[in-house]
Amino acid sequence: MLISPAPAPHALGHQMMIEYYGCDADILNDPVRMEQIFLNAARTSGAHVISSHFHRFQPQGVSGIVVIAESHFAVHAWPEYGYAAVDIFTCGKTIDFQTAEETMRREMASKRHVVIGEFDRGLIPPETVE
Amino acid sequence: MLISPAPAPHALGHQMMIEYYGCDADILNDPVRMEQIFLNAARTSGAHVISSHFHRFQPQGVSGIVVIAESHFAVHAWPEYGYAAVDIFTCGKTIDFQTAEETMRREMASKRHVVIGEFDRGLIPPETVE
Repeated sequence: MLISPAPAPHALGHQMMIEYYGCDADILNDPVRMEQIFLNAARTSGAHVISSHFHRFQPQGVSGIVVIAESHFAVHAWPEYGYAAVDIFTCGKTIDFQTAEETMRREMASKRHVVIGEFDRGLIPPETVE
Repeated sequence: MLISPAPAPHALGHQMMIEYYGCDADILNDPVRMEQIFLNAARTSGAHVISSHFHRFQPQGVSGIVVIAESHFAVHAWPEYGYAAVDIFTCGKTIDFQTAEETMRREMASKRHVVIGEFDRGLIPPETVE
């Protein structure tokens, strides 16, 4: 007898967390350049940008958010360690994560990156999906 | 013979991902109320708010970011499912995650929440910590 599996729950969102090590410190410490990089990564991945907010800390460090119609890109960069923490959070199926990841990696000149987590967010029983 | 363990690497950041189900749909769909809730959660947790950016989608849904000196709070809410995806990303040791979590849960009237992930971000060898 074959038993039909229960239908998989529907995920409303998807999130990827990436560690970028060995980046160019001057790039990580430049909020204008970082904003260009993340806007470019968002747009080339197919996201629709709503707004972006980048902030430089003293004596160093940059935090930035790109709000997209499909959720957000976030980055927190420690130039003194050549390290940037990145999150991509999306809803829908239209964002090209790989293009986004490669764009950020190339433009921050990261020598080593690790995808430390990938999550489905908002698991909704399939019968409730509108 | 006792072998000394290697010193633990130092984490630059810490991230917590929380799923809030069974929330009040009217609250989740109100960007002004949601901004107040997340500003309140950030402040009562000890964070220093730099800016906040909340956006309402059509026909429904709210996305919001609170940029804090210690990194960010992010929320993406689907009122039609009573669901909100929350991320808290911090650096330093000063943020009270529990107070933040309880504030958001209470103010969104969530009936069920799940911490689906907690991560140290930016693992730096201890000898390089400045």
